[in-house]
Amino acid sequence: MNPLNGYDIEDLSAGMTATFAKTITEADIVLFAGASGDNNAVHINQEFAATTPFKSRIAHGMLTASVISAAIANKLPGPGTIYLRQTLKAPVRAGDTVRANVTVRELLKEKKLVWLNTVCTVKDTIVITGEALVKVGSRAPK
Amino acid sequence: MNPLNGYDIEDLSAGMTATFAKTITEADIVLFAGASGDNNAVHINQEFAATTPFKSRIAHGMLTASVISAAIANKLPGPGTIYLRQTLKAPVRAGDTVRANVTVRELLKEKKLVWLNTVCTVKDTIVITGEALVKVGSRAPK
Amino acid sequence: MNPLNGYDIEDLSAGMTATFAKTITEADIVLFAGASGDNNAVHINQEFAATTPFKSRIAHGMLTASVISAAIANKLPGPGTIYLRQTLKAPVRAGDTVRANVTVRELLKEKKLVWLNTVCTVKDTIVITGEALVKVGSRAPK
Amino acid sequence: MNPLNGYDIEDLSAGMTATFAKTITEADIVLFAGASGDNNAVHINQEFAATTPFKSRIAHGMLTASVISAAIANKLPGPGTIYLRQTLKAPVRAGDTVRANVTVRELLKEKKLVWLNTVCTVKDTIVITGEALVKVGSRAPK
Repeated sequence: MNPLNGYDIEDLSAGMTATFAKTITEADIVLFAGASGDNNAVHINQEFAATTPFKSRIAHGMLTASVISAAIANKLPGPGTIYLRQTLKAPVRAGDTVRANVTVRELLKEKKLVWLNTVCTVKDTIVITGEALVKVGSRAPK
Repeated sequence: MNPLNGYDIEDLSAGMTATFAKTITEADIVLFAGASGDNNAVHINQEFAATTPFKSRIAHGMLTASVISAAIANKLPGPGTIYLRQTLKAPVRAGDTVRANVTVRELLKEKKLVWLNTVCTVKDTIVITGEALVKVGSRAPK
Repeated sequence: MNPLNGYDIEDLSAGMTATFAKTITEADIVLFAGASGDNNAVHINQEFAATTPFKSRIAHGMLTASVISAAIANKLPGPGTIYLRQTLKAPVRAGDTVRANVTVRELLKEKKLVWLNTVCTVKDTIVITGEALVKVGSRAPK
Repeated sequence: MNPLNGYDIEDLSAGMTATFAKTITEADIVLFAGASGDNNAVHINQEFAATTPFKSRIAHGMLTASVISAAIANKLPGPGTIYLRQTLKAPVRAGDTVRANVTVRELLKEKKLVWLNTVCTVKDTIVITGEALVKVGSRAPK
């Protein structure tokens, strides 16, 4: 394991798993709106959101998904996601704690690529499922 | 077209396209690190990043992808992405302006679903490609 | 007193005191997590925090202490803290208003240094105590 | 080691060390000014800062010190600092990468307290030195 950059391909095996959890705050929604430019009314306009089936403002799907990014980068296997496929299953509201779980599904050792299954839950509800492909380092001589 | 929530299914046809562009700033990277919890060295440690092939800090892939979220939510067809598949092609640095283009590929009228092709570019370089599935509203009587 | 930089050593005497107060918001905690890189679960994960003796997320100790920095820099005697010793006495939660009080204890006139006693309270509870050493300017000819 | 909260007292021994590094950005300085309320001219007014010996805006000392907070909370031994004594040695500017190193100096096993030596460097320059006292968990039966 390299000190800053997470696991090398030699450190990984199918079934390894890690979790990172974070409460989505109203501030996160504001900051994500600013950073992404996504100012949709369903995220930033409480009066409008109250008229939708959600009844209140919800987090941007990609904000919720970004907790996966933290699980990958901080925990397993490290930075460098190159592919993401995520299906949004349920809305997340400010105050919900999103728990992102990533599990190694397959290693492509020559290419130093790792397939991960990803799932985000809020309590017992699955809010996002998907997969990610991450390029990692190697200690093998080049 | 409804005033806040974007296009209804009746307003959409294959080939419609829209673009939203945003410069990714160093502040966006800091805020995204806070909102996502992803503090990987490649994003927040310039000295480490200088030792990588990128040569400098890069934006979180999901921050870059979030500009697609803005194109969808602000322009075409409106909020409510339920599926995202994105492949990261090239790194983005603070100061790069990401241009997200979304194009309607297919309408599933009964389900009020729209498939979009998505592509993000920085100048002439494609940095992300993918697709998104968005649920939209309808003016048809229920 | 210089216009931007606060009191000169000639303006200060033991016993002078000043207070600055600020409500710690959930947004401050999110931003501090981003700026510091400190994403500990006790600060960002409400479900985890609920299992601790604090019962809810608490502010980073150094965020609370930073209100002292504001009292010193904005009020008395001005910027330039070179020494800080702070003892955390009690947790601070989002919504708490931290009142930082600084009092001049001693002047080292030749070195243009000022010792301050510092205390932060939330209502009647002391949450931080400590001291700070600040270098100030002088109008004396060099 | 507990999954979210870092090392227990049983996991620690004198000499254990950890490092966390982060580039201080202009955005961090802005955000810290907002979160702390410390809007001193030396941090936020480039024209004033140019007239000081620093020649440009510098980071708040407590912002720089907060990288220690991240090293403690993310790496060793986990959250819960109750005492901080830090001496500012040199200014930090936007773009500088602060490397916070914490080393276990002494364990007070019955009280579950850990004394850490702390040092922050920018390249080879020491910018902060100090110590911290952290309360940790225990797996011993109560």
